[in-house]
Amino acid sequence: MTAHVTELAAAAKIARGLAIDAIDGCSSGHLGLPLGAAEVGAALFGELLRFDPADPRWLNRDRFVLSAGHGSMFLYAWLHLAGYDLSLDDIKDFRKLDSRTPGHPEFGMTPGVEATTGPLGQGVANAVGMAVAARMTAARFNDPEDEEQLLDYRVVVLAGDGCLQEGVALEATELAGHLGLDNLILIHDANGITLDAPLDASQSRDTAARFRAVGWDVQDVDGHDIEAFCSAYHKARTTNSGRPQLIMARTEIARGIPEVAGTPKGHGEGGTKFAESARKALGLPEERFYVSQEVRDFFATRVEKLRDARKAWEGYQVGWRLNNPHLAAELDAGIKRKFPSNFAARIPDFPSGKSLATRAAAGQVLQELMREVPQLIGMSADLYGSNQNYLKDGGDFGRDTPTGRNLRVGVREHAMGAMLNGFAYHGLYHQHGATFLVFADYLRPAIRMAALSHLPVVYYLTHDSIGVGEDGPTHQPVETISSLRLIPNLEVHRPADAEETVGSVLAAFDRQEGPAVLALSRQALPLLEELPVAERRTGASKGGYVLRAGSEQPELLLMASGSEVALAVQVADLLKERGVDAVRIVSLPCLERFDRQLPQYREGVIPPSCKRRVAIEAGVSDPWYHRVGEAGLVIGVDRFGMSAPAGEIFKKLGLDAGQICDSIVEHYQFDSSK
Amino acid sequence: MTAHVTELAAAAKIARGLAIDAIDGCSSGHLGLPLGAAEVGAALFGELLRFDPADPRWLNRDRFVLSAGHGSMFLYAWLHLAGYDLSLDDIKDFRKLDSRTPGHPEFGMTPGVEATTGPLGQGVANAVGMAVAARMTAARFNDPEDEEQLLDYRVVVLAGDGCLQEGVALEATELAGHLGLDNLILIHDANGITLDAPLDASQSRDTAARFRAVGWDVQDVDGHDIEAFCSAYHKARTTNSGRPQLIMARTEIARGIPEVAGTPKGHGEGGTKFAESARKALGLPEERFYVSQEVRDFFATRVEKLRDARKAWEGYQVGWRLNNPHLAAELDAGIKRKFPSNFAARIPDFPSGKSLATRAAAGQVLQELMREVPQLIGMSADLYGSNQNYLKDGGDFGRDTPTGRNLRVGVREHAMGAMLNGFAYHGLYHQHGATFLVFADYLRPAIRMAALSHLPVVYYLTHDSIGVGEDGPTHQPVETISSLRLIPNLEVHRPADAEETVGSVLAAFDRQEGPAVLALSRQALPLLEELPVAERRTGASKGGYVLRAGSEQPELLLMASGSEVALAVQVADLLKERGVDAVRIVSLPCLERFDRQLPQYREGVIPPSCKRRVAIEAGVSDPWYHRVGEAGLVIGVDRFGMSAPAGEIFKKLGLDAGQICDSIVEHYQFDSSK
Repeated sequence: MTAHVTELAAAAKIARGLAIDAIDGCSSGHLGLPLGAAEVGAALFGELLRFDPADPRWLNRDRFVLSAGHGSMFLYAWLHLAGYDLSLDDIKDFRKLDSRTPGHPEFGMTPGVEATTGPLGQGVANAVGMAVAARMTAARFNDPEDEEQLLDYRVVVLAGDGCLQEGVALEATELAGHLGLDNLILIHDANGITLDAPLDASQSRDTAARFRAVGWDVQDVDGHDIEAFCSAYHKARTTNSGRPQLIMARTEIARGIPEVAGTPKGHGEGGTKFAESARKALGLPEERFYVSQEVRDFFATRVEKLRDARKAWEGYQVGWRLNNPHLAAELDAGIKRKFPSNFAARIPDFPSGKSLATRAAAGQVLQELMREVPQLIGMSADLYGSNQNYLKDGGDFGRDTPTGRNLRVGVREHAMGAMLNGFAYHGLYHQHGATFLVFADYLRPAIRMAALSHLPVVYYLTHDSIGVGEDGPTHQPVETISSLRLIPNLEVHRPADAEETVGSVLAAFDRQEGPAVLALSRQALPLLEELPVAERRTGASKGGYVLRAGSEQPELLLMASGSEVALAVQVADLLKERGVDAVRIVSLPCLERFDRQLPQYREGVIPPSCKRRVAIEAGVSDPWYHRVGEAGLVIGVDRFGMSAPAGEIFKKLGLDAGQICDSIVEHYQFDSSK
Repeated sequence: MTAHVTELAAAAKIARGLAIDAIDGCSSGHLGLPLGAAEVGAALFGELLRFDPADPRWLNRDRFVLSAGHGSMFLYAWLHLAGYDLSLDDIKDFRKLDSRTPGHPEFGMTPGVEATTGPLGQGVANAVGMAVAARMTAARFNDPEDEEQLLDYRVVVLAGDGCLQEGVALEATELAGHLGLDNLILIHDANGITLDAPLDASQSRDTAARFRAVGWDVQDVDGHDIEAFCSAYHKARTTNSGRPQLIMARTEIARGIPEVAGTPKGHGEGGTKFAESARKALGLPEERFYVSQEVRDFFATRVEKLRDARKAWEGYQVGWRLNNPHLAAELDAGIKRKFPSNFAARIPDFPSGKSLATRAAAGQVLQELMREVPQLIGMSADLYGSNQNYLKDGGDFGRDTPTGRNLRVGVREHAMGAMLNGFAYHGLYHQHGATFLVFADYLRPAIRMAALSHLPVVYYLTHDSIGVGEDGPTHQPVETISSLRLIPNLEVHRPADAEETVGSVLAAFDRQEGPAVLALSRQALPLLEELPVAERRTGASKGGYVLRAGSEQPELLLMASGSEVALAVQVADLLKERGVDAVRIVSLPCLERFDRQLPQYREGVIPPSCKRRVAIEAGVSDPWYHRVGEAGLVIGVDRFGMSAPAGEIFKKLGLDAGQICDSIVEHYQFDSSK
């Protein structure tokens, strides 16, 4: 099948040497996979994958994800050999400060790295998300009139035994089977060794049978047999079975270091002490980081062919653009992730005097937005009915409906999170996913990866407090909002009424630098009509603003977010009755945004001179102490909730206007006899 | 097989009525499962399960877990009918404030509720943990000489389609198959309907084939056919196949309300509007919360038989105790969760002058503790080598080694978390589980459940900061510690040296009211020898203490946790060189504990008069502002980390003594020219 077995075997040897030398150089890192899967890597990068190292973001490239991210030297070695902009010096800097070759692959840091990986299982689910995006994109943009296709790339993911124990990978592969993603190839580096022990210490699954049961085709090959692997890959690539493709590549971990190969010691640093002898046994010269001229020449020829294929595609693309000008414009907009400017002005005001849950308001904004932004897509973990984020007329994405813009991911929150990341890595889309806020914990590892990798993912999380009511403490987030606020580079929006929601939703979707959470209420919230609509929308997009000034120099400042802003208004009104007049109300729907405003703006909203500050939020109080200062008061919920009608819970936990008013009067010793 | 089909069918009808009336009564709650699985419930509580309603914690009872916790009225109805201390008034108070029948079952709130459930999938994994505990306990305490066995209960869990989509359930069931837990019976309420849609909108798995592939026996029955279900259950209960047992009970969701049965509407509140007609169609009288005398009589007879069985067991137990006095004493100690008092005094001091990673120190404490506490068991998610929590000579728990005290759960963090909860629900054990701290996110939903349910679980989380070094930001927790601190009723310990670690480990394991995290360093930390060993141990157990007084009235206070306490010492020494003498150093390994100390103690440690306060922690700074006050300074890490040798990262991020000293001098305008 392949003519290049000898050359690829030689390349595998060189890649093994690079991995040994890099890991030896920094005395850390994982040797097991780079050595064990060297032939797989040679076949993929030397023969099978379609890419152009000169343009790592070429639209029709195959996407390769190394889910077993600890084997990063696998990726770096092959990217280097395959001609990506990654030099031998970069390889020598493996795991060093400010290098482009960090311990685990990081998206945006190294050309050719399609996803940040390391936490196991994530990459598998990222790849499932990419494959959905690929299927969707191909269905949208390919011209059915043509024989050639604009987009026909595959998503290829390499996973270890550990990845395939993780729930996130199990969820995602079940969904992939359901969706019939035959554009997805999962290569299982089946070396039968996890970090602690042989795999059979923790697993006795029939992996092939398990994957077949969830709708996959399975092939089982010797991962060191390049010919056999290539043949399996060709079969997987050319299938039209309607099923995702698993290739179980049986490998020996750390092959090339006889002292540790095939054992758990081969995983880690154990190999470095045998570097010298391994190099010898492999027949490598004493020179470290050695690349033979033969291998250089082989890849030079390979890269030329890849470039020619790429050029042919560019030629086709010119014609496609001429024939499909509207689609071409849409594609370009997607690539640039264009977002309509000043869109808030185009959304009608919500009807005055009517209360509305912010989940419902956000849902309405989504409907407006989806018409304008064809790349807006969404998912829900079996809660479309409750989340209210279904894109009407968007259709369901499915095996036979690949242009659908709603994806029912089932009760698989973690897979949803990682698939959203896959969408974002893929590019082109404005992606969001929905579940209950309290279940943010289920996808938290994926949220962290989005934040770390600067992925513009929106989490649409409803039922945002004890306002959940009867469902009780298992479903009432009290610590969740603040725990999300702690994740660097994540924005958390908790709008207070329907109009703030407009600002929050648009800000979240317009964000380019990273992910954003929308924390939305289950219960209806009154419109805060003391300020004009436009000011609430803009205020929300700034993260915080003055809802009621009270005075230039207020004697008391109430700050709150979400459903508690209306409560703050009630409190202020009550205080007025008790003679405390100059009360300022500040709405803070997004602390991260507010903190990024200029000091002048911030101090205009929260004057440092006003020391009497009260924060009200139906969640843990700790994060607010920072903002109220030492003289301040935080009205929060520092315990789990309870099952009862929402109003009764708020009252029971001290979150009603009367009780708060009393606390304030007592705390600041206001004379309420006036 | 069963003689009581007619009576059980009648009971099912009554249970349906109770569910309809309770849900109608509060206009919320899930009807689908209580109605759909009514025959399953009748069979289980009326015939199959072994329990004694008079003693819900009887040691040899079958454990029944309702993983599909939204179907709580299923459980409440059957517990009521089966004679538990749960009255009709309790049922009438369903989902009301301060009732014993909250929206989702809560452990400790209602007799007969074995686990808090609701977040899907958790209960399945809880049950796997319980089944491991059951196997372990039986192996430990049963007398092989006897034909009768002290402990031969089964763990029975009822899960819906949604539960079996969740990664946590998929992980746990794979492990259950691996471990050959044939004492576990999973009843799948296979109604083919999830909340949003028919199941086939998000799933096309061959569930039976999937379970067989992961080592289970599978039976497929009509869940409305009581005879067939009982027969399947008997087969499952009496098997010696060495495989866990899945019974797929095919049911119609919301059976009994023709308008919504078999559709997604049957799940939720949709049914309440048909309450009246449904009651009629079922042939129930107009009286709400109706229980027929016939059904009362049936259960009275049943309870008598159960009591007799229980009495027979008590009789056997008397003899067992006589024959096995040592085991009996151990069993009693387990039931009381006895913990050795003043154990710290029995742990030798760590060798002076030697640095040691706190993970290593904690591992050594574990070894001491395991000898004293036979109920101490542990798990690791494939990181025993790195976590260093393997109980030496404890052996591996496995299919053929049921007395092993170490459980290799594989790379299945979430299942581990939920299984630890299962152990804690089971009782008897001091359980802990280990992984890297950053992967606390993977099991966070289970940690939350432990905190909510007051479960004494210890999380042994190593590699606690950017000190992870080369593995980079994917593996470096910066927000994790503080995000755990936000969970109510969770203690987070981050000891600063080996001796503090003694105090922290003992405090964590001794905790009865809820879970505790041990955040432990990868890197070696110096011993803080300026204070005697005993004081550091005691100080750690108090959550915080003065490491160096500086002065009665210090002019500056440095507070820190974990690896940053030694850094604070360096900073203080440097400040002294620069003329700032009266610097107090406070070590705060556990903020939750410290905050529970008497004000007098706390103010002795952190004098309110000292306004110059600096907090140093290699994590997000936000939570510390509360403690430093408005004039204070927090030296934290408000970004993701990086891949490089640990020392270089600390320096790069400003966490070295020189830079911190400069910041302090600048912040407080100390005259450092002195």
